[in-house]
Amino acid sequence: MDVITIERKVLQKNDEIASANRALFKKNGLFTINIVSSPGSGKTSLVEKTIEHLSGKLKISVIEGDVQTDLDAKRVSNYNVPVVQIITNGACHLEANLVKDALENIELKGRDLLIIENVGNLVCPAGYDLGEDIKVAVMSVTEGDDKPLKYPALFSASQYLLINKIDLLAYTNFNMERARHNALTINPKLKIIVTSCTNGTGIKEWVESILKDKFL
Amino acid sequence: MDVITIERKVLQKNDEIASANRALFKKNGLFTINIVSSPGSGKTSLVEKTIEHLSGKLKISVIEGDVQTDLDAKRVSNYNVPVVQIITNGACHLEANLVKDALENIELKGRDLLIIENVGNLVCPAGYDLGEDIKVAVMSVTEGDDKPLKYPALFSASQYLLINKIDLLAYTNFNMERARHNALTINPKLKIIVTSCTNGTGIKEWVESILKDKFL
Repeated sequence: MDVITIERKVLQKNDEIASANRALFKKNGLFTINIVSSPGSGKTSLVEKTIEHLSGKLKISVIEGDVQTDLDAKRVSNYNVPVVQIITNGACHLEANLVKDALENIELKGRDLLIIENVGNLVCPAGYDLGEDIKVAVMSVTEGDDKPLKYPALFSASQYLLINKIDLLAYTNFNMERARHNALTINPKLKIIVTSCTNGTGIKEWVESILKDKFL
Repeated sequence: MDVITIERKVLQKNDEIASANRALFKKNGLFTINIVSSPGSGKTSLVEKTIEHLSGKLKISVIEGDVQTDLDAKRVSNYNVPVVQIITNGACHLEANLVKDALENIELKGRDLLIIENVGNLVCPAGYDLGEDIKVAVMSVTEGDDKPLKYPALFSASQYLLINKIDLLAYTNFNMERARHNALTINPKLKIIVTSCTNGTGIKEWVESILKDKFL
């Protein structure tokens, strides 16, 4: 019972810090996205494509979350945007206080969009608000169409679902209709966009949705 | 500091129960495999292929771990083996006590091989011994060759790495040499087998390794 009590305290503390983060983002006019998926679903590639398409319109900063290595931050820094790497040292998700600490190392004034790439994990990040405006779940077609049913918490907490790696669809037994049905069963309000960072499918629709969310 | 102390106690308790599970497996002559990967790397398909190839030689039982649903247990039960589904209700990994409870609902006497399919998660299951003889990490080529570096704990704790979905290699930028190098950098003793449940690559090598591990 002790563990549960402390877990609740941890979540409550997390929510308080997330609220403070959110207020700071709002004060600076910063729209913030928290991207969550399994390892290898293509989060970093989606971050790269988002920067490519929006960096002429918006000033973008990035926070990368990883258990180990700064490989992703190095990839993203090639796009000439400010990027901070959080290495969790084994922890399986980002928490609001880690983001708060990262914010001390990144310019907020005059920035428009903050992209936070969470640790690759379809389970634990779902429960931790970071102060973001929207949570974006990513699943790739190679993972199978049953994932929303098997990992409902993330799909339930997200505003967007990007169904990624659609260029590989023909080589899998992924059923798009069933995937959509499964996702919308868990969360009927989920905005679903089908994407590929390899052939560019859906990237325009995705970045235009972000622009609308920020400015409309 | 409280959380860390309790986390240590949780792990210590887990290790005690895992040792008891291990003694029970040994007493019953049961060889036990704990399969861990990201969601959608093909664990369940590998379990199915393993049963197909070994059910004539070994009496197999299966424990399925999932956050939600009994979809995997239903799939595996088509292969006429005893299967128990553990639904963790949000918890991101199996623990030894969950396996202990499952063992009360599955025949151990006269069985040869117990396959435990863990929750889809590349981070948290790494730290929890279930009492298994071997831990098997699975990564699919669609996930990228950097995964051993980014999620080292699992690769470090495993005896096997199955690099799965090799049939999709041509459609990805996965570099096999780099993947092997990354994995062996983390764990030089890792036995790496390249597999595909779609075209059958490596399945024979995998099941023969299991037979050797059990009987040699």
